[in-house]
Amino acid sequence: QKAGQLFSGLLAMNVVFLGSAFISSMIFNHVAITLADVWILLSILKVLSLCWITYYLLGTSRQPHAVLYRDPHAGPIWIRGSVLLFGSFSILLNVFQIGYSAILIHCKSRVEIVFPSIEIIFICTQAFFLCHHSKDCIQVQHNFTRCGLMLNIATNLLLWLLAVTNDTIHMEIESQLREVEQRFAGKAPFPHPYLCNETTSCTCPNTTICKVFQKGYILLYPFNTEYCLICCSMLYVMWKNVGRRISHHHVPRVKPRFKLHGVVFGPLLGAIAVIIGICVFMLYQIQATGSAPSREVFVMFYSYYIVLLPLMSVAAVVGTIIHALEKRELDTLKNPTRSLDAILLMGAALGQMAMCYFSIVAIVATDPRDLLNSLILSYAVLLIFQNITQNVFIIDGLHRQPFVAVAEVGPTDQAGQHAVTSELPGEKESTPNIKQEHTQIPPDKEEERKEEQNHEAYDQRRMSVLELGLEIRKVSRSYMHSYSHLNWKRRALKEISFFLVLCNIILWIMPTFGAHPVFENGLEKSFYGYSTWFAIVNFGLPLSVFYRMHSVGGLLEVYITA
Amino acid sequence: QKAGQLFSGLLAMNVVFLGSAFISSMIFNHVAITLADVWILLSILKVLSLCWITYYLLGTSRQPHAVLYRDPHAGPIWIRGSVLLFGSFSILLNVFQIGYSAILIHCKSRVEIVFPSIEIIFICTQAFFLCHHSKDCIQVQHNFTRCGLMLNIATNLLLWLLAVTNDTIHMEIESQLREVEQRFAGKAPFPHPYLCNETTSCTCPNTTICKVFQKGYILLYPFNTEYCLICCSMLYVMWKNVGRRISHHHVPRVKPRFKLHGVVFGPLLGAIAVIIGICVFMLYQIQATGSAPSREVFVMFYSYYIVLLPLMSVAAVVGTIIHALEKRELDTLKNPTRSLDAILLMGAALGQMAMCYFSIVAIVATDPRDLLNSLILSYAVLLIFQNITQNVFIIDGLHRQPFVAVAEVGPTDQAGQHAVTSELPGEKESTPNIKQEHTQIPPDKEEERKEEQNHEAYDQRRMSVLELGLEIRKVSRSYMHSYSHLNWKRRALKEISFFLVLCNIILWIMPTFGAHPVFENGLEKSFYGYSTWFAIVNFGLPLSVFYRMHSVGGLLEVYITA
Repeated sequence: QKAGQLFSGLLAMNVVFLGSAFISSMIFNHVAITLADVWILLSILKVLSLCWITYYLLGTSRQPHAVLYRDPHAGPIWIRGSVLLFGSFSILLNVFQIGYSAILIHCKSRVEIVFPSIEIIFICTQAFFLCHHSKDCIQVQHNFTRCGLMLNIATNLLLWLLAVTNDTIHMEIESQLREVEQRFAGKAPFPHPYLCNETTSCTCPNTTICKVFQKGYILLYPFNTEYCLICCSMLYVMWKNVGRRISHHHVPRVKPRFKLHGVVFGPLLGAIAVIIGICVFMLYQIQATGSAPSREVFVMFYSYYIVLLPLMSVAAVVGTIIHALEKRELDTLKNPTRSLDAILLMGAALGQMAMCYFSIVAIVATDPRDLLNSLILSYAVLLIFQNITQNVFIIDGLHRQPFVAVAEVGPTDQAGQHAVTSELPGEKESTPNIKQEHTQIPPDKEEERKEEQNHEAYDQRRMSVLELGLEIRKVSRSYMHSYSHLNWKRRALKEISFFLVLCNIILWIMPTFGAHPVFENGLEKSFYGYSTWFAIVNFGLPLSVFYRMHSVGGLLEVYITA
Repeated sequence: QKAGQLFSGLLAMNVVFLGSAFISSMIFNHVAITLADVWILLSILKVLSLCWITYYLLGTSRQPHAVLYRDPHAGPIWIRGSVLLFGSFSILLNVFQIGYSAILIHCKSRVEIVFPSIEIIFICTQAFFLCHHSKDCIQVQHNFTRCGLMLNIATNLLLWLLAVTNDTIHMEIESQLREVEQRFAGKAPFPHPYLCNETTSCTCPNTTICKVFQKGYILLYPFNTEYCLICCSMLYVMWKNVGRRISHHHVPRVKPRFKLHGVVFGPLLGAIAVIIGICVFMLYQIQATGSAPSREVFVMFYSYYIVLLPLMSVAAVVGTIIHALEKRELDTLKNPTRSLDAILLMGAALGQMAMCYFSIVAIVATDPRDLLNSLILSYAVLLIFQNITQNVFIIDGLHRQPFVAVAEVGPTDQAGQHAVTSELPGEKESTPNIKQEHTQIPPDKEEERKEEQNHEAYDQRRMSVLELGLEIRKVSRSYMHSYSHLNWKRRALKEISFFLVLCNIILWIMPTFGAHPVFENGLEKSFYGYSTWFAIVNFGLPLSVFYRMHSVGGLLEVYITA
């Protein structure tokens, strides 16, 4: 088993290295290696991955005894949902790209239509594969399956890398365009050598559809990067599950479901944060895409963060303390999905934290007493603190046993419980074991219900007038019952995680759709130099976006199991 | 336990990030953050680490029940030896630095004498601590110990980072000096803006001692970087061992020792490789430190590698096949040292492989048919292949049970066996099991020898003249006996690992002491641009040097357990 993992890991490593060497060569030496070369390499990888997926779907998974076990933790519904969502946005992106290239066909090569088509086929097949087979613990053709999975992971990683660096180029062009504008207004002293080629080669004719394609392309881009990373994490879990045998006590009996459970303050506060956040974001975007972003808009933007981040940190700390108070058993069973979740959370937080520390050093070394600088400084410190507390809270929450036993015993099961207690004296003679108790519940429930039905039939004629009133009282009592079942600790945990989910969503929306104040405020840019700061942001931003999205997933799980 | 690990890990992560932000700021913005600032930060960290080490030595480890278990795999003799060796070299380096600063005291600040003094104290204390306590599984003050260890790890990592980037600066200055020389010879078109400040500020007076300090500084530098990394890996194992309880069957009964076991071809071939390698290295260094390195010297250098690397790869592949043939049990017990070894091997190989892939892409994109280019291309491909095969061989070897039972039965144990066999007749009534079968082989041999001895005693008086000849024959026979004990598989494994040890040593010496053809051949430099290729080499070279050193350790272990 180890040998197979080692071998397939080495295969993936080599593919990733070769691909990243290609991509970096393209960035640093435009002449020798062009974007088309990289696309050819990636298309070859995609076709190979497609071949393997097809073989898996039609061959491997249909063999006898191929899939004996399914990992219940792998590929939860929210992950599969986001694969479908981001996958469809990525397809739309490629459709836009094809349309854009078709309009400008006179100055672009035909190959720019072929590549997106391959990409669309790849995305569709992979999404189908992941939705149907992400829980598989395959038991045949171990090594071949491992290599196939690793090839897929490597392809997705390279697609992500290319998307991130391309996103860079897009950002770079945009910021340079702004510089050009400023230069025309008589500010910058000398012309930039880059832009001449970019603008003169191929411009969009002034039709609406072309503009729509262009704008849609920019808007949909972030979803593509997220899609690649999610696919990677799902494929990795599948890879870890190859050849795994799951014992039966490993499978949780009842799956907790998403219910609102009467939480009020969390959603309320979260919604307020989201609404204010969207307003701030709109104002910022309008100002920042204009000629020169003013100082006030930065002050507003950072102030929003400085109010929100301490709230989130406090919520996470309180949640961690409640976790410690509520002495629930830890779930120590082997679970690749959870280990990966924890590692990804910590790893993705690194990007954000690296950027923050660079900001802190830059500000402290220049002038921390300026209003805007002190805002940025406290923003950076608070962000680090928030990331750490949230990570601790989520990882803590993921490692606890889900609250199944009591949470699922609603008023509908009351009858069953009653029956068990009434029967208990008689049962004491037999050897008590857990299994008997388990199977004892349904018949009693059945009897109870029969009795109830008899009662109802008996009373039906006499109290038909009061029926409606009774029904209403019953429903409200059952609601109150289920509500009071949540003791204050569990309720507080649910409120906190819901609030954090909403906050993380707004913190995900802002950088995803273009608010990059770390780049636009110009402070760190002038301290570290353009290209260095660019490289740092380019490493940190995609990770921080992924971190927010992944936190939402983790927090939802904490909410459900609380 | 998990919570303590998480918390101390977060602490270390934050310290490392803050430190690396400082160091990068120093590199990219010389004015705002100077080397002195970084040294102050590091000195604070060192003093804190020293305080913790002192507390551990005097307080924690002397508490009752503090160290109940000791991990037998942690801190093997070769690691502790290299800590002492590299530690003493690092101390020497700091002494040189103090001496150099004392000579140039008129133009350097006094603080440059204080920092190396703190460094010397830190290195001494840490080396003492690691040599005596690296096997500890501490059972008291878990969280405080974890935090202390992580603080130490962070300090060492930052010292390594600073050393690597400083090494950069040294390399950069050297290569720029060469450019200046070329410019004076009328080649380069325009002057470089950097150098003016560097050369005029503070030059060495023409005394011998100053030159010695300077040269010694450059020679001893690589040892310092290695020292930091080794300390990190040892501290990490200690951190993993905090609070660990080791069951008694976990401890191996007999420790295999290093013996030559009559291996011949491995050491012979290895020694030849080392001698030729040193000659090539000398020639290369003489040529490369001269004005402009000629083409022939590169051809010679790469040819040496191209001959050596396939030999090493073939040896590793044959070794892996023998591992597969010799169906020995796998050692699957938990062992943090071994997991770390495997991870470090794979991780350190990444550096080398990344550089190779970048070279390959650069060469294929320019002109692969040129003689030198094709040599570099095959060098890169072979190096990747060699790294992979060697990693597989070492990791495979580390996971096997050591060959204790038979390996230790040499002719010296004959007396002990004799005692056992004389008791055997009484034991035969008991149920026969595998152990008996094991000890059954000697009695026949024993009887034979007894007969022989009787014969000898009978003949002793008659043939006293032939005694000497018999003695010689006996010794040679006992040698043959121990020699034949190693069957061909084990012998081949020992030959192979010894050969690989020597090869890795020479491959470690070359880049450590200044042969950096990847930088000096100029091919990739012109393809990627100076600063990009510099960053890549700067990431890859220290890792590849560490990889070679770590491989030597792993291979020695494979040699001993084979």
